[in-house]
Amino acid sequence: MSELRLVPLGGLGKVTQNMYLYEYEDEILIVDCGIGFPDEYMPGVDTLIPDTSYLHEEIAKGKKVVGIAISHGHEDHMGALPYVLPEFETMPMIWASPLTVGFINKKLQDVGIETEINVFQDLKPVQYGKYFTVMSLAVTHSVPDTKHLVINTPEGVIYHGSDFKLDEHPIDGVKTDVATMKELGDKGITLALIDCLRVENLDRTESESETGPELEKLMLNTKGKYIITLMSSHIHRIQQVVNAAKKLGRKVAFIGRSVEQNVKIAMDLNKLQMPDGVMIDKRDMDQYRDKELCIMIAGSQGQEGSSLIRAVYGEHRQVQILPDDKVVFSANVIPGNEIPYYRAINELASNGITVIYPDVNHDLHKSGHASAVEQREVVKLLHPKFVMPIGGEDRHRAKFKEYVTQSLGYKKGFTLIPGHEEVLGLKDGEVRVVDKISIKPRTVDGLGIGDVGPTVLSDRRSMSQAGMIVLILPRINGRLDLSKMDVVSKGFVFVKEATEVIDFIKLQTVEILEKDGRKAKTDEDVASLLERQLSKKLYKVIRREPIIIPVILDV
Amino acid sequence: MSELRLVPLGGLGKVTQNMYLYEYEDEILIVDCGIGFPDEYMPGVDTLIPDTSYLHEEIAKGKKVVGIAISHGHEDHMGALPYVLPEFETMPMIWASPLTVGFINKKLQDVGIETEINVFQDLKPVQYGKYFTVMSLAVTHSVPDTKHLVINTPEGVIYHGSDFKLDEHPIDGVKTDVATMKELGDKGITLALIDCLRVENLDRTESESETGPELEKLMLNTKGKYIITLMSSHIHRIQQVVNAAKKLGRKVAFIGRSVEQNVKIAMDLNKLQMPDGVMIDKRDMDQYRDKELCIMIAGSQGQEGSSLIRAVYGEHRQVQILPDDKVVFSANVIPGNEIPYYRAINELASNGITVIYPDVNHDLHKSGHASAVEQREVVKLLHPKFVMPIGGEDRHRAKFKEYVTQSLGYKKGFTLIPGHEEVLGLKDGEVRVVDKISIKPRTVDGLGIGDVGPTVLSDRRSMSQAGMIVLILPRINGRLDLSKMDVVSKGFVFVKEATEVIDFIKLQTVEILEKDGRKAKTDEDVASLLERQLSKKLYKVIRREPIIIPVILDV
Repeated sequence: MSELRLVPLGGLGKVTQNMYLYEYEDEILIVDCGIGFPDEYMPGVDTLIPDTSYLHEEIAKGKKVVGIAISHGHEDHMGALPYVLPEFETMPMIWASPLTVGFINKKLQDVGIETEINVFQDLKPVQYGKYFTVMSLAVTHSVPDTKHLVINTPEGVIYHGSDFKLDEHPIDGVKTDVATMKELGDKGITLALIDCLRVENLDRTESESETGPELEKLMLNTKGKYIITLMSSHIHRIQQVVNAAKKLGRKVAFIGRSVEQNVKIAMDLNKLQMPDGVMIDKRDMDQYRDKELCIMIAGSQGQEGSSLIRAVYGEHRQVQILPDDKVVFSANVIPGNEIPYYRAINELASNGITVIYPDVNHDLHKSGHASAVEQREVVKLLHPKFVMPIGGEDRHRAKFKEYVTQSLGYKKGFTLIPGHEEVLGLKDGEVRVVDKISIKPRTVDGLGIGDVGPTVLSDRRSMSQAGMIVLILPRINGRLDLSKMDVVSKGFVFVKEATEVIDFIKLQTVEILEKDGRKAKTDEDVASLLERQLSKKLYKVIRREPIIIPVILDV
Repeated sequence: MSELRLVPLGGLGKVTQNMYLYEYEDEILIVDCGIGFPDEYMPGVDTLIPDTSYLHEEIAKGKKVVGIAISHGHEDHMGALPYVLPEFETMPMIWASPLTVGFINKKLQDVGIETEINVFQDLKPVQYGKYFTVMSLAVTHSVPDTKHLVINTPEGVIYHGSDFKLDEHPIDGVKTDVATMKELGDKGITLALIDCLRVENLDRTESESETGPELEKLMLNTKGKYIITLMSSHIHRIQQVVNAAKKLGRKVAFIGRSVEQNVKIAMDLNKLQMPDGVMIDKRDMDQYRDKELCIMIAGSQGQEGSSLIRAVYGEHRQVQILPDDKVVFSANVIPGNEIPYYRAINELASNGITVIYPDVNHDLHKSGHASAVEQREVVKLLHPKFVMPIGGEDRHRAKFKEYVTQSLGYKKGFTLIPGHEEVLGLKDGEVRVVDKISIKPRTVDGLGIGDVGPTVLSDRRSMSQAGMIVLILPRINGRLDLSKMDVVSKGFVFVKEATEVIDFIKLQTVEILEKDGRKAKTDEDVASLLERQLSKKLYKVIRREPIIIPVILDV
């Protein structure tokens, strides 16, 4: 009665928080372990991590994790490892590509986790437990050493095709291994998971190599410092800027923790070629004239507190941006970041700085994801029995069905779009939804993991909308003494008007208790009576709904 | 010593909150009076309105407002009238185009303001006071009856060119009056203000008439209800959908307060042609089969609480969206609204509803703003002495200089880009910055105007990030009694962990007061001591910074 179960711990219909379990009998193989990003309903939350409760219930039932395979070195595929690994009693075996191992090692080091991570060798299957073998194959993406995973299971071959594009001219020369895709397809694949994020685009995604000449051209006519901001893991983009700087005789300085770290890791692993004499320490920049400098700086989304933003607002010790300088945003804005991103660009523009960004120059950035055209090519090469779009939101999954599989003539039932929390079961070449798990958002806020739940978040949101009012009612010798009541408000109205409001609240409190206080038997009754009636009265006079907290204080 | 002063009450480098004063001697002419939209640093705020304190200081000095001219019927050009008008002791004369008057009248009615608004007749100058005449001329934009204003002043002609495009095939046949532009240019213009919002685009903005055929095509192959969401003031888009429905035999129902109101106003003014028998009341929709219905519904930005969003989540009484229906988003997402907008699209897609949106079909929406090409054409026609880009952010103003005026060969000094709060003075054909005003954000929150200032907003934001903790310290007969202290927290940690945290805080409070309490002379000293030290201690253990409010309660 065994079947292969595919369990999406981070949920389906999501771009981030990637974490998939493949379960067979008593074995569990994990693919990816990434973080997610909080939305506006989660104020104050730093990061989201996958809800691993299902996994640990299975382990408690006697199942064992035979290994964790990581597809590539992006946060939404490997960033949750520091949170998830400490939950295991026995540390699972981890496999990843060389650069990804480098990134993971640094992450784990930072939080004091020691474990050895194994390196994939492409096309060499590795045995995981009794039931699984995993083989990596090269694909192109916006971080070097990205892999797709071919998973052999007792129920056939699963092709785990997370983030990729078909770049014909990748910077490191390592193309997507379409030959192996074809071979695998001809041998027979039961289920292929395919990155669908960029399915709305019907033109082939342009090659990363098209950004280099433009970035060089922009450097050429820069009078002062050439300051470029980009994703810190985009080693190929960094390589192209390094090459341009070498050619045009500029020194390269890296600024910002993430960029500096990733560059060091990539250089150590020979994934970034740094010509002699090009790179300088950021503290030595003052030894060069502005026109001799190329600065790669972190903060391409306009993130508050990033090195770029500090420089933009004149608060960076090493980087002062001057009118002869040029600032290049070599990254698209990620949806949700529009406001800080454009605020930074506006601030530079208003200071008379030349600033170039993708809205005015389409060659500053090329996506790392396959368009519908390339997704179709991969489906044709693999021609699996079933296909499931991953790494996209619900609209992308729906469009994948329309633009990719329907347009290729595949029949109904070929494309699987299970619900967010649904578990697929594969058995005898058939696949169906066999289970549903419950996935709760798991928050990281400061040092706390998971202690910021729905109530805390909804309280935070309410307070952000209209502030809060605390009503302190002293009870002396068992009797409420309203003459000594105090009211404290924050975020509700301006201090000048606050006295008026506080007097209003005190008066209303006395009235409410006189009128209905007798019906309230317990302290909770009193509190909920005041909360309810004061809310109504305040809404009537000012149309706001602050959180109201009555506190009875026994003295 | 008189000069003409141009005072931007809503600030420069902004898209919204348009309000300009033209001042000469004792007279003030106002152009536009629009609202702005709060950003993420202004949680809970509904709307922003221009800071009119400069205006009222001038009035107090004896100046008088000779009139308010409104360029077109968009919220960011006329939406602040209900807030700003009641501030005047004498109601100023207001002028606008017919549809704009219709929109304004409805707004003022809603808040009980009674005043007569005058109607522009294009190319007929109207005298405002002794010093100004204003003449309107037709331009195309995303709301009918949009005007540019030609202002004759003692210091020459000012061309006030707010939002427009050069649509060669407008739906109502009323093209931008380029002939008059040329005439005016030939007679001599001192300063032209030009809408620069869409300057990043180098291709001519496509005609509104290109959306109609696509919207009709999509209607043709819809099995169930055709549901389309659009900007409620976009009467031309609505006209095209009405025409398509008429042609394809569907009945049209309007849903959502703003759409229903605007349609009624436009029909009354003959700005929207409704063929007989096409429009039905939304309450009669159940008398028709789904394939006979075309529903135009408000909520094109995915706004919480809008009719569309209630329908998407199955909470709308009249509209149930079913698998055979088609939902069309005929509006681009406005920056900052990405999350709710795409959430709505995802929700529909995940329910198996066909949803079409601009990312997958570029013909669903055409912008109402001129591209750099059209901006250049207008500058060439007007060839003023000076030009000032308006209606854009700082990056757009900078690009206007580069793409429009520099590319036309105009010299340095031709393009004026004053600071956000700067006042221009025109005298004897010269222009310079002559003053700087102070513009404070003016918030509307519920029924309160301006009572939500920087402190309230920063408190709201802090509470949204990490919640708050109130520390109640009873003082009995003049002595703090810490044994009776109480601690209340909200939005800080999950209730289960809260007891632990509260015990920690109580313990720390006792320690802090034992150690440093003697140094605190006043109640404020005690409060600030506790606030400071507790903040530090909490940050150390949990890396969060809730607002801490110590309250000493005398009982």
